[in-house]
Amino acid sequence: MTQDTFPSWPDVAADLVNVAAGRAAADMIITGGIWVNVHTREALPDHDIAVVKGRIAFVGPDASQCRRDDTQIIDAKGRYMIPGLCDGHMHIESGMLTPAEFARAVIPHGTTSMFTDPHEIANVLGLEGVRMMHDEALMQPVNIFTQMPSCAPSAPGMETTGFEISARDVADAMQWPGIIGLGEMMNFPGVSNADPQMLAEIAATQRAHKTVGGHYASPDLGPAFAAYVAGGPADDHEGTCEADAIARMRQGMRSMIRLGSAWYDVETQITAITEKGLDPRNMILCTDDCHSGTLVNDGHMNRVVRHAIDCGCDPLIALQMATINTATHFGLERDIGSLTPGRRADVILTSDLTSLPIETVIARGRIVAQDGACIVDCPHYAWPDHARATVNMKRTLTVDDFAISAPEGANGVTANVIGVVENQAPTKALQFELPVTEGRVQATGEVAQIALVERHRATGGVVNAFVSGFGYKGCMAMASTVAHDSHHMIVVGTDADQMALAANRLKDVGGGITIFQDGEERALVELPIAGLMSDNPATDVAAKAENMMQAMRDCGCTLNNAYMQHSLLALVVIPELRISDLGLVDVRTFEFTDVIVQ
Amino acid sequence: MTQDTFPSWPDVAADLVNVAAGRAAADMIITGGIWVNVHTREALPDHDIAVVKGRIAFVGPDASQCRRDDTQIIDAKGRYMIPGLCDGHMHIESGMLTPAEFARAVIPHGTTSMFTDPHEIANVLGLEGVRMMHDEALMQPVNIFTQMPSCAPSAPGMETTGFEISARDVADAMQWPGIIGLGEMMNFPGVSNADPQMLAEIAATQRAHKTVGGHYASPDLGPAFAAYVAGGPADDHEGTCEADAIARMRQGMRSMIRLGSAWYDVETQITAITEKGLDPRNMILCTDDCHSGTLVNDGHMNRVVRHAIDCGCDPLIALQMATINTATHFGLERDIGSLTPGRRADVILTSDLTSLPIETVIARGRIVAQDGACIVDCPHYAWPDHARATVNMKRTLTVDDFAISAPEGANGVTANVIGVVENQAPTKALQFELPVTEGRVQATGEVAQIALVERHRATGGVVNAFVSGFGYKGCMAMASTVAHDSHHMIVVGTDADQMALAANRLKDVGGGITIFQDGEERALVELPIAGLMSDNPATDVAAKAENMMQAMRDCGCTLNNAYMQHSLLALVVIPELRISDLGLVDVRTFEFTDVIVQ
Repeated sequence: MTQDTFPSWPDVAADLVNVAAGRAAADMIITGGIWVNVHTREALPDHDIAVVKGRIAFVGPDASQCRRDDTQIIDAKGRYMIPGLCDGHMHIESGMLTPAEFARAVIPHGTTSMFTDPHEIANVLGLEGVRMMHDEALMQPVNIFTQMPSCAPSAPGMETTGFEISARDVADAMQWPGIIGLGEMMNFPGVSNADPQMLAEIAATQRAHKTVGGHYASPDLGPAFAAYVAGGPADDHEGTCEADAIARMRQGMRSMIRLGSAWYDVETQITAITEKGLDPRNMILCTDDCHSGTLVNDGHMNRVVRHAIDCGCDPLIALQMATINTATHFGLERDIGSLTPGRRADVILTSDLTSLPIETVIARGRIVAQDGACIVDCPHYAWPDHARATVNMKRTLTVDDFAISAPEGANGVTANVIGVVENQAPTKALQFELPVTEGRVQATGEVAQIALVERHRATGGVVNAFVSGFGYKGCMAMASTVAHDSHHMIVVGTDADQMALAANRLKDVGGGITIFQDGEERALVELPIAGLMSDNPATDVAAKAENMMQAMRDCGCTLNNAYMQHSLLALVVIPELRISDLGLVDVRTFEFTDVIVQ
Repeated sequence: MTQDTFPSWPDVAADLVNVAAGRAAADMIITGGIWVNVHTREALPDHDIAVVKGRIAFVGPDASQCRRDDTQIIDAKGRYMIPGLCDGHMHIESGMLTPAEFARAVIPHGTTSMFTDPHEIANVLGLEGVRMMHDEALMQPVNIFTQMPSCAPSAPGMETTGFEISARDVADAMQWPGIIGLGEMMNFPGVSNADPQMLAEIAATQRAHKTVGGHYASPDLGPAFAAYVAGGPADDHEGTCEADAIARMRQGMRSMIRLGSAWYDVETQITAITEKGLDPRNMILCTDDCHSGTLVNDGHMNRVVRHAIDCGCDPLIALQMATINTATHFGLERDIGSLTPGRRADVILTSDLTSLPIETVIARGRIVAQDGACIVDCPHYAWPDHARATVNMKRTLTVDDFAISAPEGANGVTANVIGVVENQAPTKALQFELPVTEGRVQATGEVAQIALVERHRATGGVVNAFVSGFGYKGCMAMASTVAHDSHHMIVVGTDADQMALAANRLKDVGGGITIFQDGEERALVELPIAGLMSDNPATDVAAKAENMMQAMRDCGCTLNNAYMQHSLLALVVIPELRISDLGLVDVRTFEFTDVIVQ
């Protein structure tokens, strides 16, 4: 297992003391900046920061006592010195990038600490997959703390994941050097019902004095919420309105408010601070999920902080929500989250606290990004072959695998159809009348076929059903091995031939996303690692993803976030109708249902 | 070793969840109170709190879902429900009471959590003494967390303590169930100079993920302070002015501001919040030292909170400084410090947030005090015989032991005299001309004799010197085995006979404080445990202490805090002149000096 080799405060305390006292040389001094102090909520001009061995040794008006000939001097030129930004909850896999490439993408945006839950890879590669992510995380020049995934499978009994996470796995992982707590406890009905495994995972985390992440994705703030809180989750990022944020903070949780690529939950909740005037210490900014395109074009935590400020939040409070609040929540306030002695020297230089241009980024005492460019190496983990060969299909698929038989002698049927809804994660359980040709039900008009292709255990299983709402026309299919949360393969298409082509293509390339139209591949995003991530740079992945989304549009799709809608169709914890490797699932009742209405 | 038998959150999570959900009965429900929410800084009327197994299961407008026939109902009648108060740093020994009797004295004042540093007993009985205090602490019905003493001796090389604390002791103690961190790191020059033992103690604490207490007792906020901060102490309670508080908070420490029996450091520092408007999250209220008389007559943490409010602090912020701020500092915010699910059910009912009458106190889910009376048992530890026999003198002393010989043939001498200064801890190094009779120097006029009688190893050692400022007249002596920090015996008197009587009396009773006048004992406070504490109730000890102070006045003493001045005369870390078992110490230079000027 990769160890955390960055020295702790006690490892270098003597150096810090000697530099502060002027008896030894600082490695680096940042001179003449405005010290943004997130402890006192002040901006203090004309301060120096002295660094040794990657940690801050001294902050004061004059650090010349530890300046020697070989001390690196960085002239802040009167700009603001702010702590490196922290993302309080996120999934690296959402960027379709490895931890190294994700780090390389976000470092220029000033993100120096991330709290990441490798939930997706846990479903594909289990505890070993989590450990690989954890190990690559510890190799990076910035701080990536790993939250141990809590819920694989997300919906026990309703789907088959590649691997499952047990309470014992959680207890074991709590001893790993980079594990900071438990990842979002998504099984909120389980917690509210005192499910023994869920409580055992939380207990193992609490007993290790680590932080239990929450995920209470329901508007119900009644007894079910109260019971969830009593179970122990310490934060929640699923709130969507002011009342959600207030309820969580009052109950002693931290309210994480997110701005992801497709999450817009800051503006609706930050009013708890900006309008209701509550103590802001228990509010934290996060992204949850960012696509590579967002990272390349829009930013990361700097985007979130800017947005919070745009929503009327005092810039110093917004910065607290992305620095010290996060650090305190995870028990790390003496390690990261402020520019004070002993802490990791993670510093951003910016000339404006509102527009927040990220001009220079220093992490662990060295410059890692300058004017938007990452200038540091982000080492790649040696991903083993089996992590690059996770599309385990029993055989090459044919049109027959995607045939949906009608009842004997029927000329038409009533079918249950997954109804995708614009701009909403929940689907609708719809019914359509569909024609029958040669004993097979035909997808026509608004309705396309959807198939869930088993890819973890090579069972050869293919579950077929119908979906509406994408708007696809002509002869096409799209397949993806990103298929939350069990990450089999989702194929959506208007034609069984194209569906077979697309599925087989992902088998051949080891996972990713592909679109076929009229027998030709129109787009491909290779995601060789676990079928979820690329170890190519974010710019490459973003370009291919953009090409893929263009191909979707070219096939007639008009949905916003169309790719996300595709990848969530197997998420059997969100109502109403979803597909899993075990069948069509009515998530309203957590029961399987037939494709053809009898 | 005593274990902490109070169940943790994970121990009872299923019960909490089931009560919150209404599937099980609450043990207690407090109905219809104003919920003082220290997370959001709000007072929310019409709330109920449901409790099971000593922890809060539910807080909301209506807890009837978990109310059953056998649920104990407490009608708050519209009063405020505030979290039990926390004392962020204190010494139980200062009350001259055992942990049990201290707890019994402060519970009616609403103190339900204490962070105590048994530094005094560490000097007398070493690590074993710390463990005894720790064990009695864990037996109490309220939360007493032990800070492992860091500095015994306080002044290495300048005094001989009963025992010494090593870095290894600190590392071992970090594994004890009730140890919350390192006690105040008083050797601030040591830290600033990177003393290996001091840094090793801090490192052991940080590596155990516990909190390092600070004690930087100097007005110098220059490089020495910066170096101290870089060494790792996480808080400091030695600030005396606004600039001290601000400097500490800006540097990422928590500023503990104290109101003890003789400390008045709140009014001068809280202006950092009330006037300068800094973020209050890093300010914490504490007492440091409270005499039993203060506990009996004036209160404890309720007195401090009231005082902070009197100084202009918003009551909700003042309460945060005595609840959640403290809990967060010690990594306990999910266990104590707020009225939210999962936390220990430590609740005060009060009808006014400003005058703060402590009407009902609930600790761990049961009523422990009502209208100023403690109604719960505070169990006594079975203190072993050797903890009650710590006045180890070689022999009965005589007048000759207190003789100060003049140089051969001298009729008078110039003597170095410890000059006690009204209302100040530092003494002055004075010189007086003193007469000689029969070869012995005579204390006359303003000058009395002082003797440091060795009492740990029965060496028979008596160090004699002179002191001025008490104002004693006539023929008297006062002796005390409370003699910070090494806690030998300090005897001050105008007459060698009386000094011998007083010293021998404390040998006979096993420690405490006595005053003799004209051959008769005028006052006695027995402190049999380590010569520091009584296991009698605070009211008894306070009465005897008041009698003792009256006897001091009857002997001519006019000083404020006269007893404290007496007991600090051996504190060889505070300038200018002190006495130790090794001689008269000039603390300005940390060198021994002669009593008779040559």
